[in-house]
Amino acid sequence: MTTVSVLGSGIMATALAFPLSDNGHDVRLIGTHLDREIIDSIKERGVHPGLDLEVPQAASAFQLEEAEEAFDGADVVMSGVNSFGVRWAGEQLSSLLEPGMHVLSIAKGMEATEGGDLRILPEVLAGEVPEGLREQVSWSAIAGPSIAGEVAVRRDTCVVFAGRDAGVLEEMSGLFRTPNYHVWTSTDFVGVEVCAAAKNCYALGAGFMEGILDRENESESQYRNYDYGAALFGQATREFGRFMELLGGESETPYGLAGVGDMFVTSMGGRNVKVGRLIGSGLRFSEARERMPGVTLEGAAAIEVIGGALPKLTERGIIGAEDFPLMRHLHAVVGADEPLNMPWHTFFGGEEDSKAGKG
Amino acid sequence: MTTVSVLGSGIMATALAFPLSDNGHDVRLIGTHLDREIIDSIKERGVHPGLDLEVPQAASAFQLEEAEEAFDGADVVMSGVNSFGVRWAGEQLSSLLEPGMHVLSIAKGMEATEGGDLRILPEVLAGEVPEGLREQVSWSAIAGPSIAGEVAVRRDTCVVFAGRDAGVLEEMSGLFRTPNYHVWTSTDFVGVEVCAAAKNCYALGAGFMEGILDRENESESQYRNYDYGAALFGQATREFGRFMELLGGESETPYGLAGVGDMFVTSMGGRNVKVGRLIGSGLRFSEARERMPGVTLEGAAAIEVIGGALPKLTERGIIGAEDFPLMRHLHAVVGADEPLNMPWHTFFGGEEDSKAGKG
Repeated sequence: MTTVSVLGSGIMATALAFPLSDNGHDVRLIGTHLDREIIDSIKERGVHPGLDLEVPQAASAFQLEEAEEAFDGADVVMSGVNSFGVRWAGEQLSSLLEPGMHVLSIAKGMEATEGGDLRILPEVLAGEVPEGLREQVSWSAIAGPSIAGEVAVRRDTCVVFAGRDAGVLEEMSGLFRTPNYHVWTSTDFVGVEVCAAAKNCYALGAGFMEGILDRENESESQYRNYDYGAALFGQATREFGRFMELLGGESETPYGLAGVGDMFVTSMGGRNVKVGRLIGSGLRFSEARERMPGVTLEGAAAIEVIGGALPKLTERGIIGAEDFPLMRHLHAVVGADEPLNMPWHTFFGGEEDSKAGKG
Repeated sequence: MTTVSVLGSGIMATALAFPLSDNGHDVRLIGTHLDREIIDSIKERGVHPGLDLEVPQAASAFQLEEAEEAFDGADVVMSGVNSFGVRWAGEQLSSLLEPGMHVLSIAKGMEATEGGDLRILPEVLAGEVPEGLREQVSWSAIAGPSIAGEVAVRRDTCVVFAGRDAGVLEEMSGLFRTPNYHVWTSTDFVGVEVCAAAKNCYALGAGFMEGILDRENESESQYRNYDYGAALFGQATREFGRFMELLGGESETPYGLAGVGDMFVTSMGGRNVKVGRLIGSGLRFSEARERMPGVTLEGAAAIEVIGGALPKLTERGIIGAEDFPLMRHLHAVVGADEPLNMPWHTFFGGEEDSKAGKG
């Protein structure tokens, strides 16, 4: 039996308690200051209100002030906060981690420097921990197509555990693997995490196709708008490949679970798709945002970071002005509040200049 | 003004008359012996019954016995039949084509020799035409994510025209390009056509995820089964890449419109997804097939051809026994009528053997 302490008790962090407890491990969910009611609910009724499910018997819940107790004797630590909480989580871990612990991160996103250099979130998380301690724990992440509720109700789910140490990844994946929760490992840490962040951006665009039907009063039409979504999916996949070249991921990483697989599942619904749909219906991003008060939009935030870095990288001569046209347009829409106006002719190397293999 | 004669008046062939007539071209739809009622309907009411739309004024309709008249003076010829009619269409073209004409094929599928060597359908089509004539016409194809009805009602659609002659492709694409119908070109004829055939196979598998919910009486559940579909999408994309290596397509071709884009749109619905859903619900393929009498299932047919070729290629030492595990399971289910039992652990290079970048 392994003890797994989870900082953050959002729906994904909690969903991961299911395969762990199916395997007989001890799971301790620690709420952040934002999770107080979730922890109360689990303590009092055994139910996670966001997940709308009873949490496994083997999982216990702790308020933030009980974190030290919850970390006592832990072998594995999950950072279960979302992308907005990563630096905060790193600070907490600085006082909670012990040498020899294994950290698994689940937040998806990126950070950019002033010059537009992009960093994956597990590096940001680890960077908050003092160097001496940082080097005495392992840092890995969970990625790939998994919807929290589906994991919790034991639908078949295939994920990727990514990090730099293949041995650690094999050990971690063994804790989680069940007949329904299937785990592959990848030492392409950068590639997997870049895909995970970028897919949130592109999935926001997946909402446009339905929104455009709303705008045209065609939402009940027998003729849908899937061709539109498919073209974006294709261009997004192409841009995944370019991100691997730019940031040093392996060329094959986008073309499996971490890239297209995760983009597929993320495009099927959720809050990012919803705000995309509102934009497609004719609203500016700022107007759509106002209609979803209090809702966390990680895709929009990732567009601001990643899309916002691209002009800086262009200015520095690192990428061309014609690279990443879809991500740039997403940034124009989300970051600069411009109207949606898909620049089709710039996709796939340029419509009028298309060459062999570029389509 | 260019004259485009179309052999076959199914929904996709007819849908392509819309961008052509928007550009002022003369389109002549010629029904096959199976299309008699469609042609009657267009002649009498101007409506294509399958498409459920009025065909453009510029399009005229001809019965098969009027084909010679319809081909008189044609610059471009579309072979608009489906994969089952390709050899028949080639025979017809043998007597209808004139030197200098440009042929565009829209059927998607493959043929296999006894030994398992796979051929793309435009080659099969051209192969039916006597060599002397064959070399005096050009052979190209239309691929990429496009649903016929969406093209007809002028939803934004991005496609790939593929062939060996870049100049011809540029000329052909210029006839079709409109503000909504966006055309890229690719001289990776094999790669584009292999993707187009393979995506029909994998899209049948996309139906499993909903079917499994039906089987579990979970079809109304808030927890869907998208993780399942996403994992298949990822593995299918990986297999696209392997098909390029096997059959000589360019490595980038699957990762844009022709591969993942077209697989996305084909996974959104249609008859192949429907039969996949029935299989997911617990039926054998033979039982599911019986519930869809008279329905053409190009995906199932492509699985029989492509999936059926793989053991032969393995026996000849051309591919490994562990290659294409998803296509092999689709063939077990569709070709050998075995029960659905997804071999997750064989995907992405093997779950327990996963190495860097394989996920």
